[in-house]
Amino acid sequence: MATESYDQYREEMIGRANVADTAELVDFYRDLERQHAGALWTVANKIEPWEPASPSVPVVWHYDRLRAHVLRALDLVTPEQAGRRVVYLANPGRVDVTAAVGWLYSGIQVMAPGELASSHRHSASALRFIIEGSGAFTNVDGHKMTLGRNDFVLTPNGTWHEHGVAEGGTICTWQDGLDIPLMNALDANFYEVHPDLQQAVPFPIDDSTASWGNPALKPAGENWSKRYSPLLKYEWAPTYEALLRYSRVTDGSPYDGIHMDYVNPFTGGPPMLTMGASMQLLRPGEHTLAHREVGSFVYQCAKGAGHSIVNGHRLDWKERDIFVVPSWMWHEHANASASEDACLFSFHDLPVMRSLGLYRAEGLAENGGRQPVLP
Amino acid sequence: MATESYDQYREEMIGRANVADTAELVDFYRDLERQHAGALWTVANKIEPWEPASPSVPVVWHYDRLRAHVLRALDLVTPEQAGRRVVYLANPGRVDVTAAVGWLYSGIQVMAPGELASSHRHSASALRFIIEGSGAFTNVDGHKMTLGRNDFVLTPNGTWHEHGVAEGGTICTWQDGLDIPLMNALDANFYEVHPDLQQAVPFPIDDSTASWGNPALKPAGENWSKRYSPLLKYEWAPTYEALLRYSRVTDGSPYDGIHMDYVNPFTGGPPMLTMGASMQLLRPGEHTLAHREVGSFVYQCAKGAGHSIVNGHRLDWKERDIFVVPSWMWHEHANASASEDACLFSFHDLPVMRSLGLYRAEGLAENGGRQPVLP
Amino acid sequence: MATESYDQYREEMIGRANVADTAELVDFYRDLERQHAGALWTVANKIEPWEPASPSVPVVWHYDRLRAHVLRALDLVTPEQAGRRVVYLANPGRVDVTAAVGWLYSGIQVMAPGELASSHRHSASALRFIIEGSGAFTNVDGHKMTLGRNDFVLTPNGTWHEHGVAEGGTICTWQDGLDIPLMNALDANFYEVHPDLQQAVPFPIDDSTASWGNPALKPAGENWSKRYSPLLKYEWAPTYEALLRYSRVTDGSPYDGIHMDYVNPFTGGPPMLTMGASMQLLRPGEHTLAHREVGSFVYQCAKGAGHSIVNGHRLDWKERDIFVVPSWMWHEHANASASEDACLFSFHDLPVMRSLGLYRAEGLAENGGRQPVLP
Amino acid sequence: MATESYDQYREEMIGRANVADTAELVDFYRDLERQHAGALWTVANKIEPWEPASPSVPVVWHYDRLRAHVLRALDLVTPEQAGRRVVYLANPGRVDVTAAVGWLYSGIQVMAPGELASSHRHSASALRFIIEGSGAFTNVDGHKMTLGRNDFVLTPNGTWHEHGVAEGGTICTWQDGLDIPLMNALDANFYEVHPDLQQAVPFPIDDSTASWGNPALKPAGENWSKRYSPLLKYEWAPTYEALLRYSRVTDGSPYDGIHMDYVNPFTGGPPMLTMGASMQLLRPGEHTLAHREVGSFVYQCAKGAGHSIVNGHRLDWKERDIFVVPSWMWHEHANASASEDACLFSFHDLPVMRSLGLYRAEGLAENGGRQPVLP
Repeated sequence: MATESYDQYREEMIGRANVADTAELVDFYRDLERQHAGALWTVANKIEPWEPASPSVPVVWHYDRLRAHVLRALDLVTPEQAGRRVVYLANPGRVDVTAAVGWLYSGIQVMAPGELASSHRHSASALRFIIEGSGAFTNVDGHKMTLGRNDFVLTPNGTWHEHGVAEGGTICTWQDGLDIPLMNALDANFYEVHPDLQQAVPFPIDDSTASWGNPALKPAGENWSKRYSPLLKYEWAPTYEALLRYSRVTDGSPYDGIHMDYVNPFTGGPPMLTMGASMQLLRPGEHTLAHREVGSFVYQCAKGAGHSIVNGHRLDWKERDIFVVPSWMWHEHANASASEDACLFSFHDLPVMRSLGLYRAEGLAENGGRQPVLP
Repeated sequence: MATESYDQYREEMIGRANVADTAELVDFYRDLERQHAGALWTVANKIEPWEPASPSVPVVWHYDRLRAHVLRALDLVTPEQAGRRVVYLANPGRVDVTAAVGWLYSGIQVMAPGELASSHRHSASALRFIIEGSGAFTNVDGHKMTLGRNDFVLTPNGTWHEHGVAEGGTICTWQDGLDIPLMNALDANFYEVHPDLQQAVPFPIDDSTASWGNPALKPAGENWSKRYSPLLKYEWAPTYEALLRYSRVTDGSPYDGIHMDYVNPFTGGPPMLTMGASMQLLRPGEHTLAHREVGSFVYQCAKGAGHSIVNGHRLDWKERDIFVVPSWMWHEHANASASEDACLFSFHDLPVMRSLGLYRAEGLAENGGRQPVLP
Repeated sequence: MATESYDQYREEMIGRANVADTAELVDFYRDLERQHAGALWTVANKIEPWEPASPSVPVVWHYDRLRAHVLRALDLVTPEQAGRRVVYLANPGRVDVTAAVGWLYSGIQVMAPGELASSHRHSASALRFIIEGSGAFTNVDGHKMTLGRNDFVLTPNGTWHEHGVAEGGTICTWQDGLDIPLMNALDANFYEVHPDLQQAVPFPIDDSTASWGNPALKPAGENWSKRYSPLLKYEWAPTYEALLRYSRVTDGSPYDGIHMDYVNPFTGGPPMLTMGASMQLLRPGEHTLAHREVGSFVYQCAKGAGHSIVNGHRLDWKERDIFVVPSWMWHEHANASASEDACLFSFHDLPVMRSLGLYRAEGLAENGGRQPVLP
Repeated sequence: MATESYDQYREEMIGRANVADTAELVDFYRDLERQHAGALWTVANKIEPWEPASPSVPVVWHYDRLRAHVLRALDLVTPEQAGRRVVYLANPGRVDVTAAVGWLYSGIQVMAPGELASSHRHSASALRFIIEGSGAFTNVDGHKMTLGRNDFVLTPNGTWHEHGVAEGGTICTWQDGLDIPLMNALDANFYEVHPDLQQAVPFPIDDSTASWGNPALKPAGENWSKRYSPLLKYEWAPTYEALLRYSRVTDGSPYDGIHMDYVNPFTGGPPMLTMGASMQLLRPGEHTLAHREVGSFVYQCAKGAGHSIVNGHRLDWKERDIFVVPSWMWHEHANASASEDACLFSFHDLPVMRSLGLYRAEGLAENGGRQPVLP
């Protein structure tokens, strides 16, 4: 608050603050500061912008460049030392809050065969998208799930969870997504280590998917009072099959191609209260139109290759690459192949935006709906 | 109201009406009748029973006995004359309201190749369960669906709909289920014939199933403001597969075996506001325990053979037979085979009971949970 | 089913059943009857009418004519003998189900000072509207409420309740409204006498109204998991005051004048799942336009005098008179006074219609929106 | 990220990160930084704390000290120059985001008779609590409201609104509360100036309160599709009367005395999606027990005097003083008077916490439930 000038946000427009500093006013401002107060008009135009201007920046992380570092961590630290052996993704505009974009954390975790991390729980909701390897599993509140490539897995707010890789498996990596930064920002983050370090697994393996992962059918008479999905693992094979089926009866979204949301089958809503996830398929040769949305997105390419343009920045991606789209930035996607489809997994904070009544979106009107690419 | 006696419902218990007729009272009652009134205590015990005593009775309709009559209708009437060519099922206790049980109507409809019924809509919600034949289709609000054996299909309240069989098909039969009696009872039934007699089909065939019949995935960004399911056809193959998957991770219900509800994927709730539907699998040799529920049920055996005991009455069934369980009657089910599973489709009015806060259920405590069978 | 003719419902219109009896068909119909079945086209036009045609009829019950009979019951039966000392209202079209209209029961109850009825509970939801006398009270699940003229009181589905009049009070009468007929029709009616005949009253008197009967305020941190209103008594004075306040800022409904619904303050919805209630004020000289709705209504005049026209029948009413409007019948209301307002209390089954997606309404287009009155 | 050491957050506990810096590791960390990445274990214990540790601090702002500055603003700037003439409250821990506590903004606005601010709208939700003066008014989407002392007023997300003071009024001040910081943090803030600078007022004055501010009654047939309350002004007189009524039938909360929430009468929920508000009455001599909650609170003393203890800090307050309680800090309240009640208005972000499943609370177990006061 020891700024030299107080009038740096002036705008020459009726309805906006436009007060030039005078000696008398500066005295007044300093008096207010001494009382933990200030004059709204010195900051009004700053704190009430015309539209969102996210501090996050568009970034792509290429898996083939990160992979070696991720694997090197196997030699550098044990899960016991590290808690979790993860390389996290730091958006240059969000280093202070350890976010990949907005208030979303993401990282790449690696485990070797026979390793098992200790069990914990926290206010942060978590999800995983499996990159490579065999034999990985996650236990969530006693439900053990086996994990395969491109499977999407939940460990919701408040559930005990732990990960491991079976003795007979291979080195496994997966992308983690959590809302840790949001929980901290909201002063709402709690953390507990499981008293036994590992939890019991009283349920049949993969029971959640067998019970709840069926098309438009649910176990009769099951009551579910939790506010997250009873389905904890969404497998890749039926997801990809669903995209193909859907593609045969829809024109798709002009902005997102063949685009489906993962849902909580008990409610039809998002799988968790603070994070949603989607899978989209770009048809051979498809290049979508640009739009922008209130909400932050983290993508991983699950299949194929292509590029996205985010506020004019071209981000090239191929299978396993991760990139982000900050809130209210224009984005469009292009499949690089004329013969193969490309699939993008994404997770986002749209459930927050929708719960709080803040979601909005608009398509780009100019230039045929496509952005000029910055040099 | 010209009853001879007014005290036929007396009960000797504190808290119940117990007033003997006297000459003075009978005079009083007749005075009241002249004013369109009555004394509550003459009917209180009748209208406030200790528990529900449904006028519906347990019945089974054997398809092999009905089938010939159903097919004979092909020769007797055209769809044009009949509107719909249907043999309906008349519960002996509900003949006055044309119900199979409670307020639920059911019938068996038959159409020949090349036939097409005219389009209409009504307040009654309708569903279909396909029995035999190939080439049948239903159009609902412009969505055309091809129908196969054991498929479950909706034509919700207020939707334009029509049925037909393709030229190259075979004679087709299916079971209809509607809440027509309830709509009439509630003085809420409206009916309209489509102005063009046939509706246009602007959407791709079977688009509803391709869009909404996927496991825990929904089309992104689709808004659906109707109060019924956007999924209109639930196919048999994935339903049966779901039962098998679920059976591997659950002990099942003691009363209903492997039991799944068809749901509206947009909400996770029942497919329509007034009728729900379920499919259950009885494992080889399974004989369930008896329970009773507030709600009326119409069953069709979709696979295998067995019997049910309903308030002591044994009802034997095999594939395609239809039977009913009235509200608050004990029922248990037995698979006749020691090696094959048996599947029962059912539809019911539980959504009404749940919406109005009336659902309850209890298991039979006596006799090891099994009913004695009446001779 | 032993009707002579089967073709009495024929209609000469495409899309409607139109099959003349022939000897062969009549044989066919009789074969079907022997199998508890029938041909849909013989009844289709009957069970699928073009619009609702309620069997209920418009009736008015004049309190000054009923009152003497009600009071006479004081001498004829005790509460112990009668359970409840009530004269019920029997719609000539609904005598078989003991309904005042549709599936709604209503009656006038009378109790003398010092009397106390035994406590019971049932699936039926109940409400009361107080007519005359002082000292009446109702206990609901331990909450005791003192009752005054024009107070509206709930005894929801499943709550223990009992009524009485204090020793120092006067003879009291009130109108009861219950959905007993609906509960019986739905095979969902249960009844229990309180094991102690009277319940304890652990809460402060009228605590429900003091806690929940405040404008747009609720007790902080109160969780309420029941599906009916935590507010059990709606007093007359603030209700009438609300009508007057609202009248100063609204043009009112063309069909119902100044019209407010009693709500469950925890949800903003109706006070109970199966019955709602409203109070409306007709301004001096007001004569509303005619409309019709899916739903059945029981009215009591709470203040003033006037008349209603229901499907052409003029029903004159003054304070305390009760009248009914059956589903889908045109109705309009007129205040007889050019200087005083008139108030109509009503209860209805709109919550059922809305839960089940059946509500609709329309205004009368012809004749300036007013019905011709039948001679 | 150019920190000298990476191991400053180590914890010696199984399940927590505990990796000491080595030369090899530091090289690894720097490699990661060059790729916009990092090792989770270097920050895990920081970003996953055991419980929330809010950067906000407890503060009280004494109105008698701020008032002169607020009034001085009348001479220093016009509404035209300033947009709004407001002194905002800057929490020493939240100066960077212009928040009074957490993500909540608050300020004191002043207007002179005859002044009228231009109309605008924004994503931020806003509320007002009136401090002093007569003749103030607010227009919200065409609804004009007259404002009196201790009235609570909404200007929800997206509504056009403007404030003014009538020519015949006096200088008016009120407290503003907005979630501007949250909107900015969520990259969701939009702002628009009304094209005409002033909006039309087509509705009767104070129609919102006359229509929706009645006890457990709502305008019949009103559909309201907005996600905020149709009631925009909650007046002081009925609020205080409600507290007194409620106090006669409740023991009150051990932590908050007689405590009521302002609600959206259409839903029974909070008035806006992102901010709630409450009024509480501390009885003469009442000193509550300490508890803590996930959520941030801004209080204004509406009546009387007393003090609160927040995480050990004693904050003394009297009528019109404003103080804050950060998330998860212990707080207890004491009325200074043995004969008069004291009332605290508060607004908070509990609707956000509840929508996102994050709310929790606990009472202080030690020391008889009272905090030791820091010197």
